[in-house]
Amino acid sequence: MTHLGIGLIGTGYMGKCHALAWNAVAPVFGDVPRPRLAVLAEATQELAEKKAREIGFERATGDWRTLVTDPAVDVVSVTTPNAFHADMAIAALEAGKHVWCEKPMATSPADAERMLAAARASGRVAALGYNYIQNPVIRLIRRLLDEDRIGTVNHVRLEMDEDFMADPEDLFSWKSEATSGYGALDDFGVHALSLIRVLFGGVRRVCGHTAKPYADRPTREGGRRAVETYDIATTLIELENGASGVIALNRSAWGRKGRIAVQLFGAKGAIAYDQERMNEVQLYTAEGIRETQGFRTILAGPQHPPYDRFIPAPGHGLGFNDLKIIECRELIRRIEGEAAHLIEFEDGIRIERTVDAMARSAHGGGWVEVS
Amino acid sequence: MTHLGIGLIGTGYMGKCHALAWNAVAPVFGDVPRPRLAVLAEATQELAEKKAREIGFERATGDWRTLVTDPAVDVVSVTTPNAFHADMAIAALEAGKHVWCEKPMATSPADAERMLAAARASGRVAALGYNYIQNPVIRLIRRLLDEDRIGTVNHVRLEMDEDFMADPEDLFSWKSEATSGYGALDDFGVHALSLIRVLFGGVRRVCGHTAKPYADRPTREGGRRAVETYDIATTLIELENGASGVIALNRSAWGRKGRIAVQLFGAKGAIAYDQERMNEVQLYTAEGIRETQGFRTILAGPQHPPYDRFIPAPGHGLGFNDLKIIECRELIRRIEGEAAHLIEFEDGIRIERTVDAMARSAHGGGWVEVS
Amino acid sequence: MTHLGIGLIGTGYMGKCHALAWNAVAPVFGDVPRPRLAVLAEATQELAEKKAREIGFERATGDWRTLVTDPAVDVVSVTTPNAFHADMAIAALEAGKHVWCEKPMATSPADAERMLAAARASGRVAALGYNYIQNPVIRLIRRLLDEDRIGTVNHVRLEMDEDFMADPEDLFSWKSEATSGYGALDDFGVHALSLIRVLFGGVRRVCGHTAKPYADRPTREGGRRAVETYDIATTLIELENGASGVIALNRSAWGRKGRIAVQLFGAKGAIAYDQERMNEVQLYTAEGIRETQGFRTILAGPQHPPYDRFIPAPGHGLGFNDLKIIECRELIRRIEGEAAHLIEFEDGIRIERTVDAMARSAHGGGWVEVS
Amino acid sequence: MTHLGIGLIGTGYMGKCHALAWNAVAPVFGDVPRPRLAVLAEATQELAEKKAREIGFERATGDWRTLVTDPAVDVVSVTTPNAFHADMAIAALEAGKHVWCEKPMATSPADAERMLAAARASGRVAALGYNYIQNPVIRLIRRLLDEDRIGTVNHVRLEMDEDFMADPEDLFSWKSEATSGYGALDDFGVHALSLIRVLFGGVRRVCGHTAKPYADRPTREGGRRAVETYDIATTLIELENGASGVIALNRSAWGRKGRIAVQLFGAKGAIAYDQERMNEVQLYTAEGIRETQGFRTILAGPQHPPYDRFIPAPGHGLGFNDLKIIECRELIRRIEGEAAHLIEFEDGIRIERTVDAMARSAHGGGWVEVS
Repeated sequence: MTHLGIGLIGTGYMGKCHALAWNAVAPVFGDVPRPRLAVLAEATQELAEKKAREIGFERATGDWRTLVTDPAVDVVSVTTPNAFHADMAIAALEAGKHVWCEKPMATSPADAERMLAAARASGRVAALGYNYIQNPVIRLIRRLLDEDRIGTVNHVRLEMDEDFMADPEDLFSWKSEATSGYGALDDFGVHALSLIRVLFGGVRRVCGHTAKPYADRPTREGGRRAVETYDIATTLIELENGASGVIALNRSAWGRKGRIAVQLFGAKGAIAYDQERMNEVQLYTAEGIRETQGFRTILAGPQHPPYDRFIPAPGHGLGFNDLKIIECRELIRRIEGEAAHLIEFEDGIRIERTVDAMARSAHGGGWVEVS
Repeated sequence: MTHLGIGLIGTGYMGKCHALAWNAVAPVFGDVPRPRLAVLAEATQELAEKKAREIGFERATGDWRTLVTDPAVDVVSVTTPNAFHADMAIAALEAGKHVWCEKPMATSPADAERMLAAARASGRVAALGYNYIQNPVIRLIRRLLDEDRIGTVNHVRLEMDEDFMADPEDLFSWKSEATSGYGALDDFGVHALSLIRVLFGGVRRVCGHTAKPYADRPTREGGRRAVETYDIATTLIELENGASGVIALNRSAWGRKGRIAVQLFGAKGAIAYDQERMNEVQLYTAEGIRETQGFRTILAGPQHPPYDRFIPAPGHGLGFNDLKIIECRELIRRIEGEAAHLIEFEDGIRIERTVDAMARSAHGGGWVEVS
Repeated sequence: MTHLGIGLIGTGYMGKCHALAWNAVAPVFGDVPRPRLAVLAEATQELAEKKAREIGFERATGDWRTLVTDPAVDVVSVTTPNAFHADMAIAALEAGKHVWCEKPMATSPADAERMLAAARASGRVAALGYNYIQNPVIRLIRRLLDEDRIGTVNHVRLEMDEDFMADPEDLFSWKSEATSGYGALDDFGVHALSLIRVLFGGVRRVCGHTAKPYADRPTREGGRRAVETYDIATTLIELENGASGVIALNRSAWGRKGRIAVQLFGAKGAIAYDQERMNEVQLYTAEGIRETQGFRTILAGPQHPPYDRFIPAPGHGLGFNDLKIIECRELIRRIEGEAAHLIEFEDGIRIERTVDAMARSAHGGGWVEVS
Repeated sequence: MTHLGIGLIGTGYMGKCHALAWNAVAPVFGDVPRPRLAVLAEATQELAEKKAREIGFERATGDWRTLVTDPAVDVVSVTTPNAFHADMAIAALEAGKHVWCEKPMATSPADAERMLAAARASGRVAALGYNYIQNPVIRLIRRLLDEDRIGTVNHVRLEMDEDFMADPEDLFSWKSEATSGYGALDDFGVHALSLIRVLFGGVRRVCGHTAKPYADRPTREGGRRAVETYDIATTLIELENGASGVIALNRSAWGRKGRIAVQLFGAKGAIAYDQERMNEVQLYTAEGIRETQGFRTILAGPQHPPYDRFIPAPGHGLGFNDLKIIECRELIRRIEGEAAHLIEFEDGIRIERTVDAMARSAHGGGWVEVS
């Protein structure tokens, strides 16, 4: 296969992450051709050129529209703020490019549906950046479920908590404006749902509640402004496979930095995981003599692919940015026509619909079926 | 004050626990008169006499009704199966005795209301055995809240999980019969609610869900019988103080042995606790320089009363049975007319009503106000 | 068998612990006759009478010498400061009483040898209060070793750390006087060695180092006085079974409250334990598929005798004082002529000799054989 | 400054790690010029060309000697087996190149001294690959010490444990041959000493012990061969600053995968760290009210530079390979003439001498001064 030509739009938090992944994917894996870093787009030509030099892109542009139609580009990384996702992804797909778009898909269900339609019409790969599912430890969990190590799962609990909105005296920002979305539901909910998606499939119905820990926040001008988004969201769920569960999200949770805590209870055992200790998974199986049963802490190692492609020794630790390198390789394989572990637009839209059902339930106060 | 005469009904799990507490309360605390172990009642005279010898009771009886009217008895410990609580407690109160009754109050709301009426009519102390609230670490949490160390709490999460119902091939037992109650809701829910009660007060409204992990269980006769109780219960809550939260209960949670996990999020910090590590509490405060903020593990020690009455050195560990000794001393002080940290029938009935609202919500499928 | 008559000398930290144990041993275990609390001795008649009332002793005395010869006394609990152990234990043994003496045996090797001689001459049971070895979790470790779950142990590490001497500005006290002993070596070393004793047997040779974290301390009079004891001691060891190891002790270790950390490495697995989480043990076995190997956290429960005599449910937690109740029952069984899990004077003297070798090595600077 | 031309020798475990670092350093940091990947050397021309394509090197060679003299090369990464380090590093230095050599320096003290002489003669930067010291968490510890947060450190404990030699039935390999070195002492000891070096400086004297957990191992031919190296090493130490301590190393420690456990005790607090949880550090300070003192778990985040260059959000986790990117940037800055956080040959030789003293002490049986 030929070397893919890469177009990267955006070099912020996730743009840098994509850049590092495109650079590292070939040396890390050794089984995919080294991508050709073709064009980088940023808000201005000057910034684009600076970043292209740092990262090693051949060309730079201040106009993303020229990037998505550039003949040297085969895949477009869309890493700009959420409100731009739809236009950029659709334009790239219409130009016949594969798309790797950061989550969430869009800022409205209608935009997300338009993106899906464009992907279907193009016949190109349209993947979303749900990197937590790429953790070798999450793949291990998937494998443990497949091998029936904990039996049929009948109850799940997911928590996602950070504290970047925890200080009530932080200034009012766009994150507290209704135009940014629901709040914790779309900011964090999509991550929790991406894990449910790869581990179990879909959610059947939901019953949600949202809350504002702080009614208002100070403004730069010295006054106070009412908060419009919900930093806390808690939802009872029923999965399509019949399991019950709860998803609890809080972006004002003091002390939590990157917590994504998962608890899975099955008929033969249980699994627990916390993203803050992303190289560990807890496994309990009701096997063997009772005197020595207990949750065991499994440390990620080369026996948990593709950890082995990064480090040959166990317990040395992958990092958050490494997950993107794994995702990048999945994307390349998918473009090559192979099966891959990815959340594409077809799955992403179901995550968005579930978030929407959660929001409607929280508003209306009862159980809502996921469409 | 004079030495209280004790009557103990039952010597099972909690009966033994009461017996040890009555025996140890004076030497541990040194500030209450040594109780006089007057009469012990068990199912038969023979068993009662054996147990009386072991524990050091003066007299024994196979008829609990003679115990509750015995002039030598001032306080009656009721530690029999739940179905007996109402009759025994009411008889004791009517005989002018103080009552120390294990939780839950009764097996029906009507019985619980009758017990409360009897307590009110008697003017005696009628306390419930909610021992987890007696942990010095829980008192420390209460104090941290009082001192505003984590600011106004806006979100709470409580989980209680054990695995005694986790094996789907365990024989069908009374715990799976509807006559035993709802399942996890009354078995575990009351404990979670007792903690909410002492830390925050009441619950305003609830939205619940219950689930059966296993539809049926094998019977001794070789067939299978449909399970009637719900081993899993998950409930969204709103506290009277406005905080949102969730209570998740699972008595079929493989690997969890005595987990009561509490997470409290406030405007200035957070607190986490797990009963499986009952001598520790996690505290995060948004104080000082950000570089060194983190959840700190506080080990119980003599600076957390009444730990000091048990052991003068920190970090040496109290046990579950020690909590009953603390509860016993609170009871004695309450009988002496002093303020005490106890859940009495007046509070207990509110816990029962909350469980009832949770059950109605899970059945009906929406939010229910707690009466 | 008849009910043992108990004499208790001292009601401080450990005296209270003995008192609670004598009171609770029969109701907890149900298989030993309830001891008769005969005589309590304290420094003054008045204090003795107060304590006797609290604990339930029949008689009280301000003169311990009358206690050790009292015909109603069968067993003497010696819980006074270390300097009194030898005289009291020897007097009791010479009076034909069994002795339960707190650790360490004495404040000099010569005294310890005299105590052993008295015990041998008397034919009575002479046991030491090494309560940590009574933890059901330590017994589980012993059993795992016996069952060869981790193979032959080839390396051991023991740490014991507390912080009661950690503040350099705490006033100079008797703990810093040479007359109190070596420092960490006798204060903590005996505990570490008691665990080695019950798990592996003896120590063959040692190479030690001691250190003073603070050269002097303030005195009440406003000056400073040179510290004479060593709050830190570190020793390389070789066990009689050939394993290598290290014992690290620090009583000025800020943040450690009751840490006794044990790591055992064998040919088939490993075990880790920390007294600060005394209801847990970590077990790793190189069994099964590598992908799911990991240290498992085993929570103490009724399957780990004699936990079951305290609480029928797992994961609910024993406390430090419960260990003394277990020790008390072992003592009673030993007096009854049965095998028991106890450190008697015969073993205790070997612990004292090992401490002495450690001190000589630290002073002289090389390896010393344990006599 | 101009773009450095890079020559990489070796593409194994650490060679891949260097390659990833050279590729990522500019996009991650944005403050160093993107290195030019000039020449890659491997054992054969064919392998070299394959790897050069994967990683993006311009040219490839099967002869490392042509690489070290190549005009396009400014810096040589030496990542081959230890026995080759001396020849390659010296040749590169003599050719006027900067050298980035993996630890340990060499397989004999004489070779290490020759390397140091070559570095001094060249005037070039000669750095060693001690990546653990680059962890932002280790820098935080360094800063906490500088800011006197835990007072003067008086006691240190370091453990390094893995289990790649733990299985006694693994075949005899070169790791068990005396020609490979002492065993745990050089394999692990240098890492422990690198941490001591950056945190405290030098070691004054040592008293060591080494042990073989298994006397022999099976050979491929079906027999057994005596093990010549020591997989376990334990050493008492005294630091130049007067602190006492212990270093315990075990490469046959079942269950430990990448453990480097550090405990530092000071006059005002304590710090604990474990490389298996490399994004966390435990800090205890004797500040504030005693009731809420405890070890706090600080999660690495952007407030701990240079974590911020990788990820703008806290608690998301760096990985082992990221440490090499940090080291790479330190090297570039050092070459640019700025101060850098690196272990160069001048410091590396002192680490090697300390290991040598440890080995001599273990052989001879007493304290040895570090030269």
